[in-house]
Amino acid sequence: MKLNQKGLLIVLSGPSGVGKGTVREALFRQKSHDLLYSVSMTTRLPREGEVHGREYFFISPEEFKERIKNNKFLEYAEFVGNMYGTPADIIEQNLQDGKEVVLEIDVQGALQVKAKMPDAVFIFIAPPSFQDLKNRLLLRGTEDDENIQKRLAKARRELDFAPAYDYIVVNDEVNNAADRIMAIIRAEHAKCSRSLEGYFRLLEEEDEQE
Amino acid sequence: MKLNQKGLLIVLSGPSGVGKGTVREALFRQKSHDLLYSVSMTTRLPREGEVHGREYFFISPEEFKERIKNNKFLEYAEFVGNMYGTPADIIEQNLQDGKEVVLEIDVQGALQVKAKMPDAVFIFIAPPSFQDLKNRLLLRGTEDDENIQKRLAKARRELDFAPAYDYIVVNDEVNNAADRIMAIIRAEHAKCSRSLEGYFRLLEEEDEQE
Repeated sequence: MKLNQKGLLIVLSGPSGVGKGTVREALFRQKSHDLLYSVSMTTRLPREGEVHGREYFFISPEEFKERIKNNKFLEYAEFVGNMYGTPADIIEQNLQDGKEVVLEIDVQGALQVKAKMPDAVFIFIAPPSFQDLKNRLLLRGTEDDENIQKRLAKARRELDFAPAYDYIVVNDEVNNAADRIMAIIRAEHAKCSRSLEGYFRLLEEEDEQE
Repeated sequence: MKLNQKGLLIVLSGPSGVGKGTVREALFRQKSHDLLYSVSMTTRLPREGEVHGREYFFISPEEFKERIKNNKFLEYAEFVGNMYGTPADIIEQNLQDGKEVVLEIDVQGALQVKAKMPDAVFIFIAPPSFQDLKNRLLLRGTEDDENIQKRLAKARRELDFAPAYDYIVVNDEVNNAADRIMAIIRAEHAKCSRSLEGYFRLLEEEDEQE
């Protein structure tokens, strides 16, 4: 019985290197719930194999500016000369259609989203320890020692933002983390603040039928 | 990884006839989580087969009064000449020991508990429809038409208290309802307000070990 007809915006965030992407993939492998991944918009050109609307919506810098002007981004940022943004209008439409939208985003972006969508569910994905985070960064093998130290220091600073989130999910094991997120989604739908109105509407319909 | 060492007090409540007891039993059949049922205290005498500490703690009227005076009940009420109460001290000890305590209680009692334990998780178990509630009462076969009408009217009034709860769980199917409650318990433990402190403590311990 679905009392809350509107979908949830689920914001997965946390320090860089924590494994947000892997957790998100594990979450999408669970078949119990239909989730929709929020595709970002960017002004950078598509790389080979990238599909418009799958990896990104590829739009022109003019279009991007126009969307900023019209307040059509939940958040946006520049990264090495290109713009990246989370489209507010597409997400809002999907939520209205009852779809659960999952947004995977860094800590700065999540705080911007919170300012515009306080109703969203903010989940902080945290490393089980800094040693674990360091191991992850080492395993990637893409960065030297100095950069790894920099990223760890950045991760520590990003932890300061955890209290702004609703939930903390420790990524001790990726499927465990995904299970916890599924439980959070189910529980959020059961919240009186989201579902009581729908329940009372249901009872009213019953009364009218009599 | 258990960040929140303290147990949760889970208050299952809702209109009479909704099937709180059946949902609670289904919840306790789930093996995924260790739950503890809060046993009430009463001044009535044990019936045959009843065991002190299982169905009730059977105590004397003097003891009951003494406990009221010492604020040792989360709630209490008189019912056909006997006193019934929820022991605050036993519950608090179990929560401190990390046990999840489940309290099954009527709407009036739940509101009293909320005043004393705002941290508890309040779940309103609701009927899928009034027709369903009526069918349940008819199935019990213990009451005549007039009494059923009275109970339905009472249930409608009790619905007014639903907004005081954190969650609404419709008892459309007993195992579904139990699943939703399990999801709520998991999600509540992941709340930043309950678990962030434990997480930061964990990281501090790591730092000290280095």
